[in-house]
Formats: sequence, structure tokens, C-alpha cells
Amino acid sequence: MAIQVKAYAAQSPTSPLAPMDLTRRELRSNDVEIDILYCGVCHSDLHTARADWGEAFSIYPVVPGHEIVGRVKNIGSQVRQYKIGDLVGVGCMVDSCQSCSPCKHDLEQFCEHGMTATYSSHDRIDGTVTQGGYSTGIVVREEFVLRIPENLDTKAVAPLLCAGITTYSPLRHWNVQPGSKVAVIGLGGLGHMAIKLAKAMGAEVSLFTRSKGKEQDAYALGASHVIYSTDEEAMSSAANQFNLIIDTVPYTHDLNPYIPTLALDGTLVLVGLVGDTEKTISTVPMLFGRRSISASLIGGIKETQEMLDFCGQHNVVPEIEMINMQNINEAYERMLKSDVKYRFVIDMQSLKDE
Amino acid sequence: MAIQVKAYAAQSPTSPLAPMDLTRRELRSNDVEIDILYCGVCHSDLHTARADWGEAFSIYPVVPGHEIVGRVKNIGSQVRQYKIGDLVGVGCMVDSCQSCSPCKHDLEQFCEHGMTATYSSHDRIDGTVTQGGYSTGIVVREEFVLRIPENLDTKAVAPLLCAGITTYSPLRHWNVQPGSKVAVIGLGGLGHMAIKLAKAMGAEVSLFTRSKGKEQDAYALGASHVIYSTDEEAMSSAANQFNLIIDTVPYTHDLNPYIPTLALDGTLVLVGLVGDTEKTISTVPMLFGRRSISASLIGGIKETQEMLDFCGQHNVVPEIEMINMQNINEAYERMLKSDVKYRFVIDMQSLKDE
Ligand SMILES: [Zn+2]
Ligand SMILES: [Zn+2]
Ligand SMILES: [Zn+2]
Ligand SMILES: [Zn+2]
Repeated sequence: MAIQVKAYAAQSPTSPLAPMDLTRRELRSNDVEIDILYCGVCHSDLHTARADWGEAFSIYPVVPGHEIVGRVKNIGSQVRQYKIGDLVGVGCMVDSCQSCSPCKHDLEQFCEHGMTATYSSHDRIDGTVTQGGYSTGIVVREEFVLRIPENLDTKAVAPLLCAGITTYSPLRHWNVQPGSKVAVIGLGGLGHMAIKLAKAMGAEVSLFTRSKGKEQDAYALGASHVIYSTDEEAMSSAANQFNLIIDTVPYTHDLNPYIPTLALDGTLVLVGLVGDTEKTISTVPMLFGRRSISASLIGGIKETQEMLDFCGQHNVVPEIEMINMQNINEAYERMLKSDVKYRFVIDMQSLKDE
Repeated sequence: MAIQVKAYAAQSPTSPLAPMDLTRRELRSNDVEIDILYCGVCHSDLHTARADWGEAFSIYPVVPGHEIVGRVKNIGSQVRQYKIGDLVGVGCMVDSCQSCSPCKHDLEQFCEHGMTATYSSHDRIDGTVTQGGYSTGIVVREEFVLRIPENLDTKAVAPLLCAGITTYSPLRHWNVQPGSKVAVIGLGGLGHMAIKLAKAMGAEVSLFTRSKGKEQDAYALGASHVIYSTDEEAMSSAANQFNLIIDTVPYTHDLNPYIPTLALDGTLVLVGLVGDTEKTISTVPMLFGRRSISASLIGGIKETQEMLDFCGQHNVVPEIEMINMQNINEAYERMLKSDVKYRFVIDMQSLKDE
């Protein structure tokens, strides 16, 4: 029997998000039905709602939301990993082919046949459009459901499902460990998670920022140093230091000032910018230090579970501001002005009560 | 007693190379005096002779040459690794601090105090200007002298000391092995070595080239495929393939067409370009495949010896055209037109007979 839920949707690139009744599919044998408690608000939600990446990435109506936390409400006949009442999460993906080489290597985000995104994607079986977590409930196959550690502050966990894994995955892939020196560019939703996670992994963490007045927050989050990227002297003093730079800046910018701050064999990894760098890249500091530029996209399901368990063990959660579902449009405007410390989370009770 | 040798030098950025008498230092206890048999002709020789990288990199008179092969003529009192008559080589470096972290990790090319280049550099002890291999003899400390396998064609070995290690090092650093798919951009001195070495390591090798008519040579060198980078359809068909791309193009160019041809976790490594890329870089194909751009500079001494031994075992030598010292200026003009298959080597007997 199909499941009726409440949701908030954008009906077009220019319409604000508004209430919509939504039908979730009848449970398949491997499906988990989740009663959504909280959903984080990611920049991708806004970009998809407004078709900022082109109409191809936005299938209207769009119900955004891919930082989903809730409790299992029902399970399909073959579900073995979860039982009713379990605290679970869903991130940016709800399916993949499960048989290509990346999928077999736990890198479903790079599925050769295209992963199924949590919203504005097509279900692999019936072709219906996927709809995200700005909703009272969701149905997801169990392979893409994550287990949430019960010891964490449940409200604050949601952003781990996107901002958390997006920064955790490159930190792990590039072997950050005690003794590593990590720098983070930008202090927003991704940046503040990168600082917390790198610190929890034992790294010495620095923040690059363009704007003054971030020291106190950066230190509180776990950074040891704050470097103003507009201060040429400070940038020169920072040369040859960082094993890894996590660049969270979501708009086009110049990478050249940061490359010389990498240590020998260091990597600057882009996690926020979908588009072109601002300037051509000089190869000279890359040659004289075998420095690399790379990019990283969320993380696989196995690694996402590992990240959640890591956060449970180290008691790492995002800094959040709770909002009601009804305030989402206002939250988007504030997010565009970076007026949030550091991630909005929707209390879905507000939608249930509507 | 100081040693008198013959050499060819540029006296200014605009003067052709011409004969010059040169004094090599009296042997220090750890020095090896080498009777030079052959010296390869590298693009860096020409750029330094003409101050193409700025006057700071060219100290006149400049005696170029850092692909040096010869026999040990004399040794200092403490030299243990070499004896008179040994077949030896010298590459791009003749000294480094030997105590910084890169030096201790056999990465002297990245010495934190600056490696001493074979020419147009300052000796670390007496401050005299180093002079390269376009000369009948050279004196080098034994730690920077390489052993040349006797089974190789001695005339052809010289370009291994720069072109060989420059391509060998990234192939090894990025773990090329049987089953790897490697592409090489550009078929010149570096490119033809990259093909030979990647093939010898067991990789399946492709050549990217802009100009038609390279198939026969590419296949003879060991490539299995030739892809015309100006053919958009061919470029699309090459998507998602290469674990490593060795980009040997020495002039500014656009990297964007090549990034999508990298496999998941693949790297494009620049070894030829000293300067800026032609265009801004799109992050999209980097994000959707965790693809990287890096750069690599020659290789350390230990790795250079490993490369020479590898070439001895696999009988890999460059394709060369022998010239006399007196024809160097003509050779430079031909090199600028890429009119060489694939590396000039100077027979130093021509200078001894002068
Ligand atoms: Zn997101
Ligand atoms: Zn797949
Ligand atoms: Zn060279
Ligand atoms: Zn050193």
C-alpha cells in the first residue's frame, strides 16, 4: 500500500517552497520506511530547487533534502539490517547499480551507471522521480540506509549525511592522521565539519579565510591557526606546510595562492566548487613539490557508515540552528548570505503538526 | 691540481654556443672525475643558454648539458663506490644539503635548501658556478654519480639521465604496473621515453597527439593506441580509461579535454610545462571521479639509479641522433622545430679532437 506523507516542494525554479502531499511507494521487500525526525539544509537543496545547475538536474516538483535522520517505521519482508524503531539516516544517494566496479569497491557515488540521487533522480525500478527529506517520511532500500549512533545529539546528526561525509572522505582518502597538517578553506557548513573531523583524526588544523573575526569560532571548532588569505605576508609564512587542504569554497576562486602552502606531495582537494576555477593554474609550485589538485564527491555507503561510527566514538556533531519547515524559504535567503552557524536543520515535527 | 677541459658555452642570451676552455676543481676527497663520452641535449639546455626562464636561472658563461655519460678518470681519496674506468652518468643535480627531510627521503630534487643544478648553479662549498656536460670532463661528488649498466648501448644511454628519470619517476610514484592504462601527451624526447618505460612496466599505453602521421612511430615505441586530441569523437570514446596520463607538452595548453579520459582516481601529471595552463580548469570531471592534476620534477638519486638498472634489465634506451659538438647550434634550431627523433646526443670525441 502506497504511503501518504507531507512534504515541502518547489514547483518551479522561481516558486518558493510550499506544502505538498506526496505519495511514497509501497514497500518493496528490501525497503525501509523511515519516519523523518530531522533534515539538514544543504546548498545543493537550494541549487536544485532553483535549477541553478540547469533544468536537467531539477525535476519539478522538487522536494529537496538529503541529510535525513529518522526512525524505522516499517520494513520490507527481506530487510535484515534494520528493525522498527532503529535510529537511521539517509544521505545523498538512495540507489546505484550495485554491480559495476566502483559499486563493488564501495564507491557508489561514482557508479558507472549513475547513482540514484535522493531527490530529482529517477528510481531504477519504476522510473518515478525521487523526492527528498523535506518530508514526514521516506522509503529507501536498506543498502542505502545508515545506522545513526544513539549517543549523539539526534537533532545535530543530520548534516553528517552530506557535509560530514563530503569532508570525512577526502580526509581519509588522503590518509590524515595524528601529525598531519590540514588546512581548510572557508568556514561554512562544509568547512566547520572539516575542522572538527580533521581535529578528531589527530591533525593540526588551520583555517584559511578571507574575512576577519573568525578566530574565536575557528579555535572553538578545533583549529590551531587562522590565516587570512588576503594577507600576502601571512600567506608567504604559511608556505610548504599542509599535507592536505580541504577547499570548501562553493564559488569560483583562484587556487594559485594556496598551492605553495602545500607540503611536498600535498594535495588541495576541492569539495565545494562545481564549475571553473577563477584563473589559469601555474605549474611551477606544483612541479617543485609534486603538489596535486584533486576533487572529491561525498563518499560511499560503507565509508558513510564508518564516518557516523567515527563521529559516535569521538562525539563529533555539526553546529546547527534548528528551524521549522515553514521557515525554509527564509533560511535559504540567510544561507545565501552565509548567515548561519553552521547548518540549518529542520525539525520535522513542525511539518507533522501543520 | 685543477683540471683543464674543453667545453662549449653561451656567453650571453643571444650568442651561439662556442668553444671555451674550462677549469674543473681539484678533486675533493669525495669527488669523481669523469671523462665525458656522450652528452644528451635537453630543452632545458637551450632555455638556460638563452635565459628563457629569466636571467636568474642563467649565469654566463653557461655550459649546458645534464645528460652525461662517461668513464671514471680519477677519484678522491674517500671515494668508495666508484673506481677508475667505471661507466657512470650524471643527471640534473650535482649536490644537495643531504640532511633535510626530502634529502633524507631520497628526494634531493626537492631539497629544502635548493638542490645544486648541474649547470648555472652555485657549488655549495666554494660558491663557483657549476658547468655542465658539453665538455670533455666534469668533477662531481660521488653521491650524485650514477652507475650505468654496461649492457646498454652507451651512446644512447645519456638521455635517460633527464628525459628517462623525468618520466620514470611519475610512472613509479603513481604505481604503474601490469594492467595499468597509461596515456602520454606529446611525442618528443620526454614522450617517447614515457611510452617506452610505461610499456616496459607492463602498462597498456596510448598516445595523445595533435598531429597526424605519428602512428607508426608510436606503435614501434610500444603504444597500443593513438588518439588525435583534435578529434572530439575520438576524445569522447577515450573517456574514463587512464589510470595515469603523463603530459609532456612543454608549452601552455588546455588540460580540460584530457581530464574526462582519466579513470576513477586517475591522475594527469605534468612533466613538461613550466608556466600556466591555458584555460581555467573545470572541477566537474574532477569531482565525478576523484581525478587529480599533479606535476613531477625529475627524480631523486636513488630512483635515478633504480631507473638505470630497470633500463638495463629491460634493455630500454632512448631513440637518438648523434651529433658533433660543433653542430650544437644547428641542433638547437632543429629541436625548436621538433625536428629530432627523439633526442640529440653529442659525441664528445668531436670536442676532444677539436
Ligand atoms: Zn548536500
Ligand atoms: Zn554501479
Ligand atoms: Zn633536462
Ligand atoms: Zn636537502
